[in-house]
Amino acid sequence: MAIQRHDSKAVELHDRLRGKIEITNRVEITSEEDLSLVYTPGVAEVCKEIEHDQDRLNDLTARGSMIGVVTDGTAVLGLGDIGPKAAMPVMEGKCMLFKAFSGLNAFPICLDEKDPEKLIQIVKAMAPSFAGINLEDISAPRCFEIEARLKEELDIPVFHDDQHGTAIVVLAGLLNALKLTERKKESTKVVINGAGAAGISIARLLLSAGFMNITLVSLEGVVAKEEAWLNSSQQEIACWTNHENVRGTLDDVITDADVFIGVSAPNALRPLQVKRMAPRAIVFALANPVPEIYPNDAKRAGAEIIATGRSDFPNQVNNLLAFPGIFKGAVRSGASDITVEMKVAAAEAIAGLIPEEKLTPSYIIPGSLETHTAEAVARAVEDRALNQKGGAEDGSS
Amino acid sequence: MAIQRHDSKAVELHDRLRGKIEITNRVEITSEEDLSLVYTPGVAEVCKEIEHDQDRLNDLTARGSMIGVVTDGTAVLGLGDIGPKAAMPVMEGKCMLFKAFSGLNAFPICLDEKDPEKLIQIVKAMAPSFAGINLEDISAPRCFEIEARLKEELDIPVFHDDQHGTAIVVLAGLLNALKLTERKKESTKVVINGAGAAGISIARLLLSAGFMNITLVSLEGVVAKEEAWLNSSQQEIACWTNHENVRGTLDDVITDADVFIGVSAPNALRPLQVKRMAPRAIVFALANPVPEIYPNDAKRAGAEIIATGRSDFPNQVNNLLAFPGIFKGAVRSGASDITVEMKVAAAEAIAGLIPEEKLTPSYIIPGSLETHTAEAVARAVEDRALNQKGGAEDGSS
Repeated sequence: MAIQRHDSKAVELHDRLRGKIEITNRVEITSEEDLSLVYTPGVAEVCKEIEHDQDRLNDLTARGSMIGVVTDGTAVLGLGDIGPKAAMPVMEGKCMLFKAFSGLNAFPICLDEKDPEKLIQIVKAMAPSFAGINLEDISAPRCFEIEARLKEELDIPVFHDDQHGTAIVVLAGLLNALKLTERKKESTKVVINGAGAAGISIARLLLSAGFMNITLVSLEGVVAKEEAWLNSSQQEIACWTNHENVRGTLDDVITDADVFIGVSAPNALRPLQVKRMAPRAIVFALANPVPEIYPNDAKRAGAEIIATGRSDFPNQVNNLLAFPGIFKGAVRSGASDITVEMKVAAAEAIAGLIPEEKLTPSYIIPGSLETHTAEAVARAVEDRALNQKGGAEDGSS
Repeated sequence: MAIQRHDSKAVELHDRLRGKIEITNRVEITSEEDLSLVYTPGVAEVCKEIEHDQDRLNDLTARGSMIGVVTDGTAVLGLGDIGPKAAMPVMEGKCMLFKAFSGLNAFPICLDEKDPEKLIQIVKAMAPSFAGINLEDISAPRCFEIEARLKEELDIPVFHDDQHGTAIVVLAGLLNALKLTERKKESTKVVINGAGAAGISIARLLLSAGFMNITLVSLEGVVAKEEAWLNSSQQEIACWTNHENVRGTLDDVITDADVFIGVSAPNALRPLQVKRMAPRAIVFALANPVPEIYPNDAKRAGAEIIATGRSDFPNQVNNLLAFPGIFKGAVRSGASDITVEMKVAAAEAIAGLIPEEKLTPSYIIPGSLETHTAEAVARAVEDRALNQKGGAEDGSS
């Protein structure tokens, strides 16, 4: 079977490498003189310099470009709570992507601790080692509190990629899809199927970017203010979405929808439902590996633009387009946080990478391996961060 | 001034490098196929393999050769409690030494947390990321409890280098010094000046190696059972040392001493005191940069063999001779602990690197930059670890 062969190839590669990343020295140590410069006694002067001016830490050590990729292993890929050890191959892979696409260093921290309060304290204590924290594969709803608290209590950027990475690339693709189908954000009716971490994050970012008509649907039904089954983050998002307060299921909200965004389950969207959407419908079917609807079926049912999470179909929503550039820009600007404005700027930069004359229904999102993406995103994020700083200092924003 | 020039050279180097270490990828990512092998979807199979057999973690990721260099910045070099950020240049340097001398990867974790219990919990939680933990520059007496608890509660090697690194190299040098001066461990009278972490660790290791006549002296005076000022680790070591229960100062115990080991302060040993030592006296004056007595002064006062902590005199006691090989051997053997027997084996291996015909009073300790040392130490440590395991499994030891 093709899939088995592919899988064992990955295990074989990992077995042969015994580590996809390594620590390397940037200078050689071949003499007592070398030793006395990189270690004792010379290094004491470097320590003293940082002791007296803590900001020098990022100039004088690798910390200025070092991202901590932190997980507790509770929601790894689609595998669920497989624990911190089994999560390591993903975290190591993520660190590779940081290096390959942004030039930043990243180190995997897999934590044997599930209590949110303790996790927060551990990550806070590690902050002297890192210029930024990429939270990864932490289960919802714990991930919301953990990220929110760390963002507030740390003075370095903290970013839960599972929440925001996908949301940013979805927004990027959507901006181009609206352009192609001549829609305005304000009047576009968006249905998000899936009201977990990813769905709620997408809704939040779209609202921040100017979308006004959004409805979320969970397995229990349409997210509406009065529903008893809402968790706290669903209660919050219910105040900003589903303005007509529809109750029911996907069937009750899909009629005339301009956009369907699925972060849910295989085959969750039926062709008949696509037919009931508005003309020139936009379908983002992001469940992996089996999408909510396959592109050909969606197209036959009338959808004009289709995106998935897979690399073997056009328009792959891959967070690899976002996180390397976002961290690169945030770190380079010296920002203490990754704000929603910086996330929107990243999405606009990703969308802007495809010039208008090249936009087509099957090319609204740049390819994942285009290496100039990260630098373009970094520049946009850095500009936004510096403008915010400048604004704050002027008192003009 | 020469020292100033040297110091600013170190700062300049660090400023230019912006990181003495970096994370590098061991394979390139240039295609979707590459991406699918090192990251999703292929990596899922690797995760599942570790989920079902946690021992596979060390085969399939860099964790099997990854040492965590952990500090809280409370006792950095001779600078004291300068905090976790200012400690980073030392920790990064230490990681370089691991790579250069043992081939192991090492990553600096500088923790903004001083409470011993919390420190212990943090390091325990990070264990899925590391094959071993090198504790560094943690102040006494906190370091004793932190190391002891972590050794007991973790199933990976934990080693506080400030305690054991120096002790192992001191033992190595002493073994060769005894050979040259035709002494036996059992009857050699050793005075250790300094009863902090280093002095107590040296005493413990010498006792384990078969030395029987040891007396420690602190700033308060000779360590003797009844003294009111003893801290808990001094109380413990008092039961195994100073059998004649002498009270007083260094002056009261230096007469006829065969060996003086100073881990104390500049000029703490006067030439007149050396004159009162036994013939063919052995003096290890390890205070840095100004030793307890300079080698020429000690020699003129009658000492036959002198070692210091400095690279510009013969016989440098440098823990660089010990820790890279110790971790390499421990990790390679799969040992869950670094036992005292493994430490003694390391000291014997270091001593054995100088063939008897080459032993002279100014060559009892190998040079710090001799790169074959680590492998010799690793082999000895690995052998001892495997013998212990074998013994335990046979029930024969």
